[in-house]
Amino acid sequence: MDARVKGAEVAAGFELGAWCAERLARVERALDQWLPADAPAGLGEAMRYAVLDGGKRLRPLLVMAASEAVRGHEEAALRAGCAVELIHAYSLVHDDMPCMDNDVLRRGKPTVHVRFGQATALLAGDALQALAFEFLTPEPDDAGGVPQAAQARLCALLARAAGHAGMAGGQAIDLAAVGRTLTEDELRRMHRLKTGALLQASVMMGVACGNATPDAAAALADYGRAVGLAFQVVDDILDVTADSATLGKTPGKDAAQDKPTYISLLGLERARGYARELLEQARGALVASGLEDTRALRGLAELVVDREH
Amino acid sequence: MDARVKGAEVAAGFELGAWCAERLARVERALDQWLPADAPAGLGEAMRYAVLDGGKRLRPLLVMAASEAVRGHEEAALRAGCAVELIHAYSLVHDDMPCMDNDVLRRGKPTVHVRFGQATALLAGDALQALAFEFLTPEPDDAGGVPQAAQARLCALLARAAGHAGMAGGQAIDLAAVGRTLTEDELRRMHRLKTGALLQASVMMGVACGNATPDAAAALADYGRAVGLAFQVVDDILDVTADSATLGKTPGKDAAQDKPTYISLLGLERARGYARELLEQARGALVASGLEDTRALRGLAELVVDREH
Repeated sequence: MDARVKGAEVAAGFELGAWCAERLARVERALDQWLPADAPAGLGEAMRYAVLDGGKRLRPLLVMAASEAVRGHEEAALRAGCAVELIHAYSLVHDDMPCMDNDVLRRGKPTVHVRFGQATALLAGDALQALAFEFLTPEPDDAGGVPQAAQARLCALLARAAGHAGMAGGQAIDLAAVGRTLTEDELRRMHRLKTGALLQASVMMGVACGNATPDAAAALADYGRAVGLAFQVVDDILDVTADSATLGKTPGKDAAQDKPTYISLLGLERARGYARELLEQARGALVASGLEDTRALRGLAELVVDREH
Repeated sequence: MDARVKGAEVAAGFELGAWCAERLARVERALDQWLPADAPAGLGEAMRYAVLDGGKRLRPLLVMAASEAVRGHEEAALRAGCAVELIHAYSLVHDDMPCMDNDVLRRGKPTVHVRFGQATALLAGDALQALAFEFLTPEPDDAGGVPQAAQARLCALLARAAGHAGMAGGQAIDLAAVGRTLTEDELRRMHRLKTGALLQASVMMGVACGNATPDAAAALADYGRAVGLAFQVVDDILDVTADSATLGKTPGKDAAQDKPTYISLLGLERARGYARELLEQARGALVASGLEDTRALRGLAELVVDREH
């Protein structure tokens, strides 16, 4: 991440690279500790394989940055960040399966069903979704003082972002859209659900770890919406411009599968302009939030859009 | 259910049939109302198909009976009961898929992947799991006063019962056990996780809707454990004794798939004796709980064991 992070340094006295490195270390440590090593019959091994040692952890970073901006509960934010990452990871496991995208490589490694078989991949994904809600509801001894009201609120946000009105709903639209021409509105709706909902929920879960004013919370929701959409636009750009080493997956796949993208809809140049516009919206929302220190959030938004370079 | 319920009338002044009928009506109404009709691209239709109009709703009945025994919160118990049912329903959808049990009939109807395709079945199962946690964490306007502490506790119980240390873990053992001989201990462990964990969690979620003493809660946990195990023993018995009309699925399947069962391990007569013994354990636990009115719980335990007749 270092080279990319460098370009996104935001302000004097703040080093996004150092900020990310410290949080990433905590996230990796927590995931390694909380993912079961001893789940029965190889299930734990498959769950760990799906989550550990890969991924940019953008969602946990967004949770933690938002939580810090509202002076949220540190342990709650770490748990929430790891929980969102599990939902993201399980969705990739199921997405890669033969009945969905039928992908054999993910982050340069064989996908979970290739390595462990389809049945175990299906179960590992299911168990990761359940584990996300376990992370959010620690037993009293482990609770680190996470208040039960915050636990309930975090579960509410995550469930809605993951389910039929969020990620799973977006995937259903995506499935139904292969080979069809979508309007820009339809495409935006699909992405708002498929990837945007979980990215926005990451921000709102961070907010739920603290006590933001309704105005600040609304501004951070705007920020999350813009970053979520920008992420997808840039993903579509990378699918046509990057090589597979940079991407960690097969490029050109969208066009090959005749999937509608921002490139097929807007062309490359207008898609790039749209990504810049969304970055400006995200920056504006942070200013509007009135929060004192939103440098990490700003840096992460820049990172999302600058992935291309 | 009427004929079966008749044999299980428990005590003067209490009619299990009437008790069940009233709760079942509330559960069906709530599920119909809370399952999305408008989820994108056919996803809602598949989710509703998987849940509505089938199933004995044993798990919601256990939640509500346990909640009533501890004078629990009525709305919380209804939500918890429906949430457990969604977890049960999603597990059937995924279990029936070609990469797992490859079943084409469920409750006399085509299974979800036969009707809607594998990709939609996978997503519908995923979305049902998320929806379970949505049910447990209603928005403030809909909360019916369910306290957030109870919401958090219910999410904690359900996540653990559904995940790697519960249902999904048991399914992984089951997968790995096909064609192998299990010891009685191994078989019991598999079932304790695969079906027992969710049945016991149903009881404990009912308990979490009220304020039981630790002793009463421990006794109801014993009850739940015994009922969960009895359920599986009777299931194995029915697989060899019932016809497909009674069973609603293909009988004799376990033996055909060379799956270890209580019949292959104990033989039919000893398995029947074991089911009676578990029923006695469940009844004993209710007496030990010291709770005033456990007639519905007692009746449900009898119903589970008397399914055979």
